[in-house]
Amino acid sequence: MERPIDEELKALKEKLLDMAALAEESIALAIRCLKERKEELVSDVLAKEEKINRLEIEIDEECMRLLALRQPMAADLRFITSAMKIASDLERIGDQAINIIERTVELLRVPQLKPLIDIPRMAALAQAMVRDSINAFINRDDVLARNVCERDDEVDKLNDQVFRELLTFMMEDNATITRAVGLILIGRHLERIADHATNISEDVIYMVKGKTIKHHIEGNRPFSSARQA
Amino acid sequence: MERPIDEELKALKEKLLDMAALAEESIALAIRCLKERKEELVSDVLAKEEKINRLEIEIDEECMRLLALRQPMAADLRFITSAMKIASDLERIGDQAINIIERTVELLRVPQLKPLIDIPRMAALAQAMVRDSINAFINRDDVLARNVCERDDEVDKLNDQVFRELLTFMMEDNATITRAVGLILIGRHLERIADHATNISEDVIYMVKGKTIKHHIEGNRPFSSARQA
Repeated sequence: MERPIDEELKALKEKLLDMAALAEESIALAIRCLKERKEELVSDVLAKEEKINRLEIEIDEECMRLLALRQPMAADLRFITSAMKIASDLERIGDQAINIIERTVELLRVPQLKPLIDIPRMAALAQAMVRDSINAFINRDDVLARNVCERDDEVDKLNDQVFRELLTFMMEDNATITRAVGLILIGRHLERIADHATNISEDVIYMVKGKTIKHHIEGNRPFSSARQA
Repeated sequence: MERPIDEELKALKEKLLDMAALAEESIALAIRCLKERKEELVSDVLAKEEKINRLEIEIDEECMRLLALRQPMAADLRFITSAMKIASDLERIGDQAINIIERTVELLRVPQLKPLIDIPRMAALAQAMVRDSINAFINRDDVLARNVCERDDEVDKLNDQVFRELLTFMMEDNATITRAVGLILIGRHLERIADHATNISEDVIYMVKGKTIKHHIEGNRPFSSARQA
């Protein structure tokens, strides 16, 4: 039987999907701007971030309204509180896209250091993680969520690779330092985006499986339950 | 008049204060372990992280219970949903302390690169930001919360300074690279801790001042509302 809250939760899911799509597009645009040196894309990223910020506030307020007026229980309650946390992670992902575009604007003022291969690959991986973490949430799919958590290592490894390659540039020629540092920082922003997708996925696993799982899934790391954040 | 929920919210505040104190102590211990090369402190950091993780789950469940059973309205409702987000940030701060201790264990296996000055300073700044962000939350003090957000820049600047200094070490002597990279990564973990304290403070401002403020306070940055996350 359809309850009044079902329709509202459906609308909430759609808003989260919109927000995730915007976050993904921001990353793609920012990296395209960097790779293809198209400064005209900067304003598109800024416009998307405005929308992301507005959606976060709308989702937050809608969740507060549902909590106050519908008095949801059990699974609905957990879904709504998770949605609030996830919207907050998506908003921070949008911020990282802005950080990337800020660095990019600086890099576009100087000649390109090298053609970019690994940074666009990192970006593609991070985007897919964002998309899958939200799909895992919407479909309460803890298997997909676990898969996202596992992919975080790939991004970290690519980021280490980018870092080490740029280090060799800097050591061979001091004149490359500013540009290499700019690219290293962009790698870091992408790594943080992947971390946020991982955090979302951990919330999904917690929502689906309950408390016994949350800190257990992180137990593969050398020292108990650390995760990137 | 004292309501039943007042006592429960008081207990919730105390748990958050305990959690914040543990997070602060973990940072301090991890950096002391690094600076004084005392490997025996590693297990203390791990033990604190276990407690932090347990507290996050307890706070989360208590918030869910209050939402389900007390049907809180207005300010109480906002306080509870903020507490859930803040507990999640504190847990990620604990994870960063674990990341620091992981790097430290590696660095203790090789001779010290240099006496550490700026990294302990960064750590002290980050710890104070964590402490003040929680106090701002408990006391609904948006002035203190704003002050925490402003201090994030100091940590970022110190981190840039650490990074540039270590870069000169690496460029002068290839043999320092592994150690220098280890310290650079520790600087990044501290920077992320400061970012989490900033996120907590932004939540506090939002809780106290409402939606018109949240994305406005970040407007000082060159490109609209980006923040570190």
